[in-house]
Amino acid sequence: MTDILALGEALVDLKLINNQISMHAGGSVLNFSYYAEQAGTKVKFIGTIGNDFLADHIESELRYLNSNIKPLRIGQNTTLVLIKEAGKDFIIYRGADRFLTYDTIERNWKKADIVHTSAFALSLKPASEAILKALKKAKEEGVLISIDPNYRKEIWKKWNAKKENLLQALAMADYVKPSFEDAKELFGVKTPEEALKAFKNAGAKNIILSMGERGVIALTEDNEVIKVPAKKTNIVELTGAGDSLFGTVMANIAKGYSLNEAIQEGINVATQVIKNPKNLVRITQNFKQK
Amino acid sequence: MTDILALGEALVDLKLINNQISMHAGGSVLNFSYYAEQAGTKVKFIGTIGNDFLADHIESELRYLNSNIKPLRIGQNTTLVLIKEAGKDFIIYRGADRFLTYDTIERNWKKADIVHTSAFALSLKPASEAILKALKKAKEEGVLISIDPNYRKEIWKKWNAKKENLLQALAMADYVKPSFEDAKELFGVKTPEEALKAFKNAGAKNIILSMGERGVIALTEDNEVIKVPAKKTNIVELTGAGDSLFGTVMANIAKGYSLNEAIQEGINVATQVIKNPKNLVRITQNFKQK
Repeated sequence: MTDILALGEALVDLKLINNQISMHAGGSVLNFSYYAEQAGTKVKFIGTIGNDFLADHIESELRYLNSNIKPLRIGQNTTLVLIKEAGKDFIIYRGADRFLTYDTIERNWKKADIVHTSAFALSLKPASEAILKALKKAKEEGVLISIDPNYRKEIWKKWNAKKENLLQALAMADYVKPSFEDAKELFGVKTPEEALKAFKNAGAKNIILSMGERGVIALTEDNEVIKVPAKKTNIVELTGAGDSLFGTVMANIAKGYSLNEAIQEGINVATQVIKNPKNLVRITQNFKQK
Repeated sequence: MTDILALGEALVDLKLINNQISMHAGGSVLNFSYYAEQAGTKVKFIGTIGNDFLADHIESELRYLNSNIKPLRIGQNTTLVLIKEAGKDFIIYRGADRFLTYDTIERNWKKADIVHTSAFALSLKPASEAILKALKKAKEEGVLISIDPNYRKEIWKKWNAKKENLLQALAMADYVKPSFEDAKELFGVKTPEEALKAFKNAGAKNIILSMGERGVIALTEDNEVIKVPAKKTNIVELTGAGDSLFGTVMANIAKGYSLNEAIQEGINVATQVIKNPKNLVRITQNFKQK
């Protein structure tokens, strides 16, 4: 049995900052999967990359990290994010990731405790429709669903993407981890409390709201509020931190820990990740099996 | 009166070679236009770039070079070519360039002596259809047509692009400048003589076949054969050399020089271009007006 089945994007972040170049395997769902694996769970990642030197780079990073994750190669360009200023000035070239089909998902499907995906993965056809169909199947089979609602209004508008797909997924979600920015973009909320409420209204059962140095505030299925402060550290690069938090949280949920314990662990990991310029960082901490 | 009206691609070549990065304004039609302008003709370039930092880079290079060329900005990513090994290992991310419409061409149309485009520009809809329509209009108006048949079989296949569009354009062409590689890819020929014949059979009137250090062999409308040797020089980077040759040739044709004289001048310019890692190089030579 696979603990977590992750459907969505693997891509390359190409950073062109101060005339320095760096290339990193990334994509929210790939990052999430890697950190869930680091936390000691069995993860099956289903997502598509190209057949080019960027795909080689993704594979070689994963190999170097001894990961078992293996994105599927198809005859399209690997999806690329060109970054001039992280989170502010970037260009997304959608490629292979959006051509994930339901047929491919079905062929690679594993029975799992949790099925995970992201808003990015739900934004463009055919991948969006394939993943939505897969989530419905998972729901029918009683599998837990987790969604990273990494939604950006302007990008979805440019892509002519249907927000409806994401809302359908959120209504099925057992766990969501929006950043406060995601919540503002998606629901136009102004406070963390409004953000938690908006996701609850959208149908999500457990909401884990990440707020950077302000830590995490979560709202459980039973309307319990959990607050966990962030740890002070030197920040080198934030990309991938939220994914590492969420991947670790869901791995710990799969292992049977409480949401509170899972979030503590997630924050421990994210604190290590932000000290490193890469998205995928080897986690030195020893995770305990419950 | 504009001497040359150029329809087609402007893009960024992003080179990732030996962990060094360099960014260059490029695209066959942009390069051609710039060198035709350097040769002292009036050029109107009609092509689309995005509204992003790559588009800023293209504009700033052109501004730095005191060029009057101004690609049009639209709400799509700037087309990007990611190069690991020049001519061998690269990934093309098509963006804004392919969204050139006939409406945009018509609004920016100038009466000209020569209308120019490339195979790249003729590969994907809607740009391909818009440009083909514009070429037909030019032909009806008795304007000379020049085409850069920079065709690559594998890429066109991947894009599902119709070779038919290029063949229609070649049948209208007064001047074409294939490289020997282009000729092999397009017609499967084995010798320069077969290449010239194949383009003639396709309907092109004057064929200028560029063969790198083996120089140029051309076949005129009157079946005259012209051979011009290359000049020995240190090669730094070949990208843009063929475009600089062709842009200079057509500028000289527009100025009334013979094809033989025009090719001599084109080789002089290309010899300067290959000494420089950039696609767009300021030409120091003084061109004479006939």
